[in-house]
Amino acid sequence: MAISFPELQPGPRLLLGPGPSNVNPRVMKAMASPVVGHLDVDFVRVMEDLKRLLRIVFRTANEITFPVSGTGSAGMETALMNLVEEGDEVVIGIAGVFGERMADAAGRLGARVHRVEAPWGRIIEIERIEAALKAAKHPKLLAIVHAETSTGAWQPVENLGAIAHRHGALFLLDAVTSLGCVPVEIDHWEVDACYSCTQKGISAPPGLAPVTFSERAMAAVRARKTPCRSWYFDLGMIERYWGAERVYHHTAPITMNYALYEALRIIAEEGLEARFSRHRENAAAIQSGLAALGLEPAAQEGYRLPQLAVVKVPAGIDEAAVRAELVRRYNIEIAGGLGPFKGKVWRIGTLGESSRREHVTLVLGALEMILSGMGIEVARGAALAAADRAWRATAAA
Amino acid sequence: MAISFPELQPGPRLLLGPGPSNVNPRVMKAMASPVVGHLDVDFVRVMEDLKRLLRIVFRTANEITFPVSGTGSAGMETALMNLVEEGDEVVIGIAGVFGERMADAAGRLGARVHRVEAPWGRIIEIERIEAALKAAKHPKLLAIVHAETSTGAWQPVENLGAIAHRHGALFLLDAVTSLGCVPVEIDHWEVDACYSCTQKGISAPPGLAPVTFSERAMAAVRARKTPCRSWYFDLGMIERYWGAERVYHHTAPITMNYALYEALRIIAEEGLEARFSRHRENAAAIQSGLAALGLEPAAQEGYRLPQLAVVKVPAGIDEAAVRAELVRRYNIEIAGGLGPFKGKVWRIGTLGESSRREHVTLVLGALEMILSGMGIEVARGAALAAADRAWRATAAA
Repeated sequence: MAISFPELQPGPRLLLGPGPSNVNPRVMKAMASPVVGHLDVDFVRVMEDLKRLLRIVFRTANEITFPVSGTGSAGMETALMNLVEEGDEVVIGIAGVFGERMADAAGRLGARVHRVEAPWGRIIEIERIEAALKAAKHPKLLAIVHAETSTGAWQPVENLGAIAHRHGALFLLDAVTSLGCVPVEIDHWEVDACYSCTQKGISAPPGLAPVTFSERAMAAVRARKTPCRSWYFDLGMIERYWGAERVYHHTAPITMNYALYEALRIIAEEGLEARFSRHRENAAAIQSGLAALGLEPAAQEGYRLPQLAVVKVPAGIDEAAVRAELVRRYNIEIAGGLGPFKGKVWRIGTLGESSRREHVTLVLGALEMILSGMGIEVARGAALAAADRAWRATAAA
Repeated sequence: MAISFPELQPGPRLLLGPGPSNVNPRVMKAMASPVVGHLDVDFVRVMEDLKRLLRIVFRTANEITFPVSGTGSAGMETALMNLVEEGDEVVIGIAGVFGERMADAAGRLGARVHRVEAPWGRIIEIERIEAALKAAKHPKLLAIVHAETSTGAWQPVENLGAIAHRHGALFLLDAVTSLGCVPVEIDHWEVDACYSCTQKGISAPPGLAPVTFSERAMAAVRARKTPCRSWYFDLGMIERYWGAERVYHHTAPITMNYALYEALRIIAEEGLEARFSRHRENAAAIQSGLAALGLEPAAQEGYRLPQLAVVKVPAGIDEAAVRAELVRRYNIEIAGGLGPFKGKVWRIGTLGESSRREHVTLVLGALEMILSGMGIEVARGAALAAADRAWRATAAA
């Protein structure tokens, strides 16, 4: 016991990676509210309001809408563990780490995975998805990532629910990096199951995975021939805790639920449309600024996420050194690439609370100074001028 | 969006159920430290210190010691998902909800479960466990609950590691309600895998599941013939994030890890032996006081947990009404019974921060007033006098 452990003093970072995003002080304050029991009348009230708030954000009337007690990936597991059984045919769109991850998780459950792949940075063409559904004999599920966090590509998904249903499949959407930043229309798009996280577009700390399941999905869950492999993620049992019965299943992370509640309340106050506009406007500014710095987007034109710019690292630059300088000098976090994009891209996110003019201005200014200092030829002032033009254009529109 | 959601105002509860327990204000303050990224140098330092602190609390040198990103049950899932494969023979001790839960979870993974049962409130005799290991052809795992939260029974487990190993099995211990309250000696007892939670003896908010795995357990994990069914709980992948490689797997719940860090720091400052003594002394007081109120323990004599008193509800009393009065008049949470004990017992916990003289005094006083008010014959003042005698006796010893 002689070892001493220092007081916590994490840096006051500006979070401009693909998540976590900055957290509003109101959320931190709510999170520090007194802990009560997981069946306390005061917590039950929070649970009910959380379900209503999540339905607003997911744009759904789905009864089964709640936060899973784990981070975003736990939402993915909940969906796949409950919807997939040994031998089920599953069609999965894969154009980055997060599509690949779904295929991995489904494969572990004994699913026969039909991969519909596209090169990293590109979207997956709807026709190819439909062809894969047709080629599968009895597709149980179509699964795809809405906002591919590893590439910055924005997958069109509006028609996939109807297409999946035409082929007798359920439609599962990964909205981890989209929810709260761009429209996610669960009911309108006929999405049967969707998962997200708290630390991106919602801007609470990481720790919960909001999910929603349609009646069609729940019918499939109830019709399973084998029990859900997971006790922790078993929807049948979780439903009895989050539903009217209040049967103890596990102890919900009380303070994380407080944080999510306040973050969702802030979203409801701002309004979804206003929030999406804010993301679009700041995206136009940061993308213009990055282009003025000579940084080329990695994702296909016309399908770039407004909340996450993924840009190629200029030749000859040590990308990790740039990120280290951003942290050391300016307390700014951006992210590097994953898998085949490792060392090749930067991922600069303006998600939720992080999508603000001052943050865009700061990161563009800091990047300009660091890149100049490394001998990259940068037109001084061009990035901020370009961002400024973009903001003025949206104000005039 | 016209619905309005109120500001969070959960009651300032004194938490004297089986968990969550009260949280030290230092922990709440640490939890509200700035959120940084899950690969930030400042967070990596917290991760390393967390592993060292958890090794102190678990009394182990196990390299693989970290908090799983989910509540206590997620620790159980991590252990079973990684240690159990289809067809494996598993011996499980069952004398309450939490032993039953392990059998359920193992069964979902295709294990052949050998149940060693005892009546609720009793411990499971070591001889019967050994006989079950012998009867199983190739037992892969022996699993048991250390502190059965549904009954208050304190299972002897000191020799079970050696016994399991003699029969070629691994030893898995559920320390959800024991860690931080009574000794848990991972290395000395030859425990191969152990899981706990943050919201009981450790007194952080719920949200993480500390786990530890021996080299023997990790060898079994690496020798699996089939992949872990769970992507989220796959130890091989989590190990690469929590180990030196820092390969992204999922986004850790940053603020929960801050909270756990501070809670463990408080434990290290107090010292484990002093902490166990505190629990024993307050347990003697509350158990004497409850006896003076005429409340009979549900667990077998000689095997009652010091941190959780489970007592029978007197005949003719509406137990839920008593709990409701405790909340309404005194802001105190205690718990009712689960399963066959529903309506029949109260569970009064003095775990971690909740184990303090003032809390014991308050709950005994409140219970005396409420029971008297319901017409139960209670010797006025006897409970506090009995508690006082118990404290004086330990002070004199």
